[in-house]
Amino acid sequence: MAAWSSPPSLRHLLLLRPRLPLSPTCLAGSFSRRHIHSRCRLFSSAASSSTLTHGDAASTHGDADGVVDVNPPRGTRDFPPEDMRLRTWLFDQFREVSRLMAFEEVDFPVLESEALFIRKAGEEITQQLYNFEDKGGRRVVLRPEITPSLARLVIKQGKSVSLPLKWFTIGQCWRYERMTRGRRREHYQWNMDIFGVPKVRAEAELLHAIVLLFQRLGITSSDVGIRVSSRKVLQAVLTMYSIPEHLFTEVCVIVDKLGKMTREEIEKELISTGLSSEAVHGIIDVLSLKSLSKLEEVLGSGVEAVADLKKLFSFAEQYGYADWICFDASVVRGLAYYTGIVFEAFDREGKLRAICGGGRYDRLLSTFGSEDIPACGFGFGDAVIVELLKEKGLLPDMSRQIDDIVFPLDEELEGAASSIASSLRKKGRSVDLVEDKRLKWVFKHAERINASRLILVGNSEWERGMVRVKILSTREEFEVKAGELE
Amino acid sequence: MAAWSSPPSLRHLLLLRPRLPLSPTCLAGSFSRRHIHSRCRLFSSAASSSTLTHGDAASTHGDADGVVDVNPPRGTRDFPPEDMRLRTWLFDQFREVSRLMAFEEVDFPVLESEALFIRKAGEEITQQLYNFEDKGGRRVVLRPEITPSLARLVIKQGKSVSLPLKWFTIGQCWRYERMTRGRRREHYQWNMDIFGVPKVRAEAELLHAIVLLFQRLGITSSDVGIRVSSRKVLQAVLTMYSIPEHLFTEVCVIVDKLGKMTREEIEKELISTGLSSEAVHGIIDVLSLKSLSKLEEVLGSGVEAVADLKKLFSFAEQYGYADWICFDASVVRGLAYYTGIVFEAFDREGKLRAICGGGRYDRLLSTFGSEDIPACGFGFGDAVIVELLKEKGLLPDMSRQIDDIVFPLDEELEGAASSIASSLRKKGRSVDLVEDKRLKWVFKHAERINASRLILVGNSEWERGMVRVKILSTREEFEVKAGELE
Repeated sequence: MAAWSSPPSLRHLLLLRPRLPLSPTCLAGSFSRRHIHSRCRLFSSAASSSTLTHGDAASTHGDADGVVDVNPPRGTRDFPPEDMRLRTWLFDQFREVSRLMAFEEVDFPVLESEALFIRKAGEEITQQLYNFEDKGGRRVVLRPEITPSLARLVIKQGKSVSLPLKWFTIGQCWRYERMTRGRRREHYQWNMDIFGVPKVRAEAELLHAIVLLFQRLGITSSDVGIRVSSRKVLQAVLTMYSIPEHLFTEVCVIVDKLGKMTREEIEKELISTGLSSEAVHGIIDVLSLKSLSKLEEVLGSGVEAVADLKKLFSFAEQYGYADWICFDASVVRGLAYYTGIVFEAFDREGKLRAICGGGRYDRLLSTFGSEDIPACGFGFGDAVIVELLKEKGLLPDMSRQIDDIVFPLDEELEGAASSIASSLRKKGRSVDLVEDKRLKWVFKHAERINASRLILVGNSEWERGMVRVKILSTREEFEVKAGELE
Repeated sequence: MAAWSSPPSLRHLLLLRPRLPLSPTCLAGSFSRRHIHSRCRLFSSAASSSTLTHGDAASTHGDADGVVDVNPPRGTRDFPPEDMRLRTWLFDQFREVSRLMAFEEVDFPVLESEALFIRKAGEEITQQLYNFEDKGGRRVVLRPEITPSLARLVIKQGKSVSLPLKWFTIGQCWRYERMTRGRRREHYQWNMDIFGVPKVRAEAELLHAIVLLFQRLGITSSDVGIRVSSRKVLQAVLTMYSIPEHLFTEVCVIVDKLGKMTREEIEKELISTGLSSEAVHGIIDVLSLKSLSKLEEVLGSGVEAVADLKKLFSFAEQYGYADWICFDASVVRGLAYYTGIVFEAFDREGKLRAICGGGRYDRLLSTFGSEDIPACGFGFGDAVIVELLKEKGLLPDMSRQIDDIVFPLDEELEGAASSIASSLRKKGRSVDLVEDKRLKWVFKHAERINASRLILVGNSEWERGMVRVKILSTREEFEVKAGELE
């Protein structure tokens, strides 16, 4: 049916990628480009030393000799400096686009009440909760997604906030899954959400944000597309076959598995909810549509689904991102709470899982016992995008960079070095103060960390209140009065 | 004994502050300044509505009607936009100082193996672990501190990293404590750590970083001081009384409680470890010393503790921050693993808990079964510093700020508005696209979000390809060709 292999569920947002065949230490470096080999080598040597165990299952405890596993818990990552620089760079892109779109940043606890995520539609996300009971008997979870927390805060803020409200957040999400499939249990997700805009203008703004991000990253519309549909398409089909309203969510969650399961399995699941086989075929036929005019033919032009989608495509023209988006009725998304437009970005080569996904969820607040507010949003994970950037050669140079290295050539000059470092830092320069090394090491170090200048504090100069400065890019060298260093 | 009321344990690093008497919603606003009243008002009105319950203990579940508690789990915070802006500003200060000091950022999972935090010295921190068993039978914790994760990664990286290694991180830490004392269960902590420098130069650099941060925030050395001592002081006393080495950590953890418990209680605890009452008095007497020369008199000048401290104070002179630090033998710190210099920053008025604290931990790695590397670091929480800044009136203006509001005066101009917003965003301007509001609302909104310009798209101008621009600070108004908007 769908031309893409990856099912449109939230699964991919959880950044689940096949474990590298090498070792979990290498897995930690899904972010890493250049250093992965050295780190894997390291792991091998480390693993062969007697001081390290690599735990599986429950063996992550320290053993009797107090030897502690040096790996983070299974399915999680450390961010050593090179990975952290990449993450910071990516998050900065998320933040910059959010600023362009005039969204405000918010945040929530990574630990939430389980009740926020209890939904009955059989979504994968609620079946893989990283949940437990705390010492006070509360059911809590490491959140699998951020939207319910957003909705919770919107309700809490109540009338003190003025609508529309445009919020973004970047946070870690968790899922508990047996590691047999070798997938990660956490990822970071950029979320942008609009509350209080019932029209598809909100969706048009969200798609604009996603396109702006891709453009900033150097990705073009021939690399990536965004498939768009509406849950109202399915809604209209259910109405055509007089299928009761309460089956809607369940049907959405089932048909979202198209691509993951065979058509026959899907049909069987649909029929087990009580649908006629005529209705089932009607649903599956509509989901294969890839053109809006065909959809209009099938559903009729008065239908909301068609009007919404037409409006959104016309917005796309006006914003100038029409070449990024296409209609695809098979997009349903795996979250139970979507009610209208749904969308997901995909690589056109079809190699990766969806890059991001989202949609309208106008009726989430009432499931929390509050009055509904029209809302839509998306989640954009930190993993698939990095894979894509890697593949396209678009990852920027992430090397370290500092301004000055201050190096006293003699131990008795450590005081002079201190005051020089101190005054340069006060002037806003990043200063690495190095001691007890050979000059040769210092030069190598300067190269490794991309230092701009080397400031050598030597006895003969210091007696005259001078220091020796070496500009590392030009190899120019000169003496400066210590007090006049800028 | 000690002139300060707050005990030198890690407790304060966990940002535990008395719960505001109002409500947990208000607690969430420990970060908030201006909005706390409106939010408390909000909470009261929200709580009186039938749609909300405020759960205690296990009642955070949704109730039978699907009503969900809108508060984050007890002891945790949401960050609505105004609180988030303050947090981002504070973290930016942490990052900027870390850059000046040429430290590299790293990060770790907030979920760690419990084994990393199992220590037997009876520290408060290990007794309040937010720990649980995951579905795979692993003992895991929401980390109470970050140092053990740092040490773990240093071991994992092994010989692939070049020493010295200077890392910083900003991360959330958790503790599980019954909420009877009305304290928060999470806080964010800035950590800076140096591995591979055995000399007190490392401590001198860390103290420089702390002072640079205070200075950036507008805090002076008459507001804040840093008490410094060394665990080697206690070590020397134990040697004087021939107390066995293995009692050292336990003694440190006990005497750290001075100020929290009475002298008599401390003496009793010390005696129960097997110390003679002569030794106990010797220990407690030394801890009352506030001058290095007195310390030298008692311990003798050949002692490492004295030499280290003298060296550190001489560094402080050379860096230029001597007025910030003072010797105070009562500083021991509550973490078991410190081995040398220990320090903590305090407000000179003595109203608050310690602002940050740290020290040398040269033997932590061997407790994980690896070879030791000399190391020291500090943790700097996000709460006490904000309280201090609030008290001193040093919190900056945190209002929202955006560049342009684009407002179509007619629904049929929504396409024009889209293309204008799109082109301005491509030029780097933050654009809030507003629709379906009255002009009066838009002006108020512009004021509230500190917009620089208002761009009105009206029919009569648009027919000529023009838009009306209003500069909101000067109230200047003019027409511009839409294509020429910058």
